[in-house]
Amino acid sequence: MTVNNVMLDAPAFCRIPFSRMRNLKITLAYDGTDFCGWQVQPDAPSIQGAVASAIGRVAGEKVLPQGSGRTDAGVHALAQVATFPLESVIPAANLVIALNDLLPSAVRVLECVEAPADFHARKSAVAKTYRYRMYRGDICPPFLARYVWHYPYPLDFAAMSEASRLIEGEHDFTSFAAVDPERGKDEPVPSVRTVFSSRWVQQDQEFLYEIRGNGFLHHMVRNLVGTFLLVGKSTLKPEDVTRILAAHDRSAAGATAPASGLCLVNVEY
Amino acid sequence: MTVNNVMLDAPAFCRIPFSRMRNLKITLAYDGTDFCGWQVQPDAPSIQGAVASAIGRVAGEKVLPQGSGRTDAGVHALAQVATFPLESVIPAANLVIALNDLLPSAVRVLECVEAPADFHARKSAVAKTYRYRMYRGDICPPFLARYVWHYPYPLDFAAMSEASRLIEGEHDFTSFAAVDPERGKDEPVPSVRTVFSSRWVQQDQEFLYEIRGNGFLHHMVRNLVGTFLLVGKSTLKPEDVTRILAAHDRSAAGATAPASGLCLVNVEY
Repeated sequence: MTVNNVMLDAPAFCRIPFSRMRNLKITLAYDGTDFCGWQVQPDAPSIQGAVASAIGRVAGEKVLPQGSGRTDAGVHALAQVATFPLESVIPAANLVIALNDLLPSAVRVLECVEAPADFHARKSAVAKTYRYRMYRGDICPPFLARYVWHYPYPLDFAAMSEASRLIEGEHDFTSFAAVDPERGKDEPVPSVRTVFSSRWVQQDQEFLYEIRGNGFLHHMVRNLVGTFLLVGKSTLKPEDVTRILAAHDRSAAGATAPASGLCLVNVEY
Repeated sequence: MTVNNVMLDAPAFCRIPFSRMRNLKITLAYDGTDFCGWQVQPDAPSIQGAVASAIGRVAGEKVLPQGSGRTDAGVHALAQVATFPLESVIPAANLVIALNDLLPSAVRVLECVEAPADFHARKSAVAKTYRYRMYRGDICPPFLARYVWHYPYPLDFAAMSEASRLIEGEHDFTSFAAVDPERGKDEPVPSVRTVFSSRWVQQDQEFLYEIRGNGFLHHMVRNLVGTFLLVGKSTLKPEDVTRILAAHDRSAAGATAPASGLCLVNVEY
């Protein structure tokens, strides 16, 4: 059907000149405790779903924001980045206010800016930083419990610190990667990543692990922390980490540390 | 029925010499967000119920710990105090560990000590301190949202500070007291309390209100904060607080501030 030569029954994107489709970049902080993770899932509250729903209500457009990467259930973010297309002319600054009005208080939009058309939250990322918090005191304050792994038993900090340095550089991290349930078996994941820095620091009652790299495999940071824990307990020696890397075998490494301690700190472009 | 002259069907307390009944004092920290408050209620998770259930599982005794006072749904505590009788000889220090193993991570036993027989968490208290946190930044970090009232609009801090000082001393606080649904109409509450100190301070992105007094009426701190807010907005002048105190009328004061910002800081004996 046409009216004044405009096809009214064409899909929405046909009616909008490409130059009018905006590419928006949002930065998000979230407490992941009560979510099934970043990725939208049927019948479970996800960060991606909450943001998509808020955008839908504000702009009347159905979009699925693409994150810099998925965070697992219970994992937090200080500055996750996502991109999405939008036709609406609502100013980016107003979008921050409108989305925060609708989102649960556990999810906040910190910033929203116009991005170049070819910018993509995941594909354009050059580095990401994650932090893992381990609470070392005997009794974990209830106000921290959602954001740390409470581990009050003896640990050799110097050994953990030494081990953490051994994964810096370019390596095949297969030994630290969980099988990703979202990917088919016929879709192998390239497992080589570059870790720019990997450090443990002590602060107040916590051991903090911070890792910056060009990309991370599924559960990689939590599996590294679980392995450094074995070094801290003297079950492994620091140099065993090099052997585990070389094994290319998930069963060579330690258990997956709890999600609560992990936080995506920032994404660099 | 008697065996060797011992009545086996007597109630439990008859079989235990009074000298063997311990009076235990526990200090608790909790994130009240997901609880219906301190007081046990049918079909709703309460702090008192969680602690009673943990004691029951550890010691096999059915006791209901008596708190220094009830905290409302969503209100937190850094050091709530409760007392309960116990027959079990389990050492107090072990009880801390055993209870924390069973309690949800949002509730922690910080200390457990033997108290004199006549010590009572509520009746023996001589002073309590509450703190109210108001977050003033434009965007409230999701990691603080459970513990503050997010109020980003303009407020006159100096006026709020001046008003807060006017309630120090002994006053009838009827204007700031909610009707207590737990008390019968025939059971009037004496409404005179002494406030030892009442102060607003600014810290980082927050306005913090701290009040220390010999006792608090139902919703009293939250109603005071709601009234100081009206002073901060210039709806009221600081000296109006004196008029509101004198009115002995709840409708003269401001609205009840949200529970999330309130925390019982400590109890003095």
